[in-house]
Amino acid sequence: MHYLCSIWIVKRSDTVADAAIALLAERGMRGLTHRAVDEVAGLPPGSTSNLARTRAALLELTLSRLTDLEHEAVSSALRADASASPDLAALLAEAIQVQLSDRNRTLARYELALEATRRPELRKIYDEAGRRFRDPAVGLLAAVGSTDPLRHARQLVAFGEGLMFDAIAGAGSEPTFDDLREAFRELLSGMLGRHS
Amino acid sequence: MHYLCSIWIVKRSDTVADAAIALLAERGMRGLTHRAVDEVAGLPPGSTSNLARTRAALLELTLSRLTDLEHEAVSSALRADASASPDLAALLAEAIQVQLSDRNRTLARYELALEATRRPELRKIYDEAGRRFRDPAVGLLAAVGSTDPLRHARQLVAFGEGLMFDAIAGAGSEPTFDDLREAFRELLSGMLGRHS
Repeated sequence: MHYLCSIWIVKRSDTVADAAIALLAERGMRGLTHRAVDEVAGLPPGSTSNLARTRAALLELTLSRLTDLEHEAVSSALRADASASPDLAALLAEAIQVQLSDRNRTLARYELALEATRRPELRKIYDEAGRRFRDPAVGLLAAVGSTDPLRHARQLVAFGEGLMFDAIAGAGSEPTFDDLREAFRELLSGMLGRHS
Repeated sequence: MHYLCSIWIVKRSDTVADAAIALLAERGMRGLTHRAVDEVAGLPPGSTSNLARTRAALLELTLSRLTDLEHEAVSSALRADASASPDLAALLAEAIQVQLSDRNRTLARYELALEATRRPELRKIYDEAGRRFRDPAVGLLAAVGSTDPLRHARQLVAFGEGLMFDAIAGAGSEPTFDDLREAFRELLSGMLGRHS
């Protein structure tokens, strides 16, 4: 009974977080309230408050769920392609396209990133999530011959972030796969001091 | 009298917009209200409403002021250095450092960029502002030998945006001037197909 009960709680917290992600994307930080989450999630009034009493708790729950979803989506895209193609630029382009394909999730992440500048607890979750992308990039760049993998990983992640931000919240239209692959090919070539 | 009056209005609209920028950075989109702007700007209650009756009008006023300030700051940094140094990577690093030096302004721009995904009028202002940075970059890249200056300008601006977002709202710490120059040197070298 206890086991079943905790399963139920896990599922409900995902429902709540998913509704919060949709709200953040559609209405921004101002549109996120406990009551609106109940409504969007189709849960009885008070459900969200029962799970996450404070606004801080709701934001943390949402960001944790979001980073798990993002990590899962990007990892599985990379796993699926890694065997088919040894082309690192193509893999990175694929990872960006996976992120862009869930526009709501990426937009909600940007909302939470800005809110994290004002909330140290949220900052901690955001930074830990960042490391889940940055650390593998360090290893990957070292493997292909980077002489400064830490700095290069940071540049690579920042480049991907900029391409995504531009496509989602900036003046840019959505880049094609070929544009993205070429962009990464050029950055990698410059960082590694050679031309592919 | 009419002339003096319009001067007064111009100045007050700057005061209002500057207070809104500070509020957006410190409290986010939820913290921006007409009343809060009056308070932060030290103006009598109702002043902000007199200038910008709706929330949309207040956001548009703020973004217009912000893009003017940004454009002015970056242009003057580039003008000052262009004669002293022909090093394009160093100029770009300088432009990023100028943006990072006014953290509030850049953070407020990100808030407005996200809000612009939900407000077509704001989107128009944001996109026009983007062109003021992108268009010169196209000319600049063509001048140094880019074979695809439109695509490269977009990549260059996205890279700068990613480096700034990472430093201000992401997991990264503030990059040094040397890190930024090296980052741009590598990207340019990859895009232009040569090593400096």
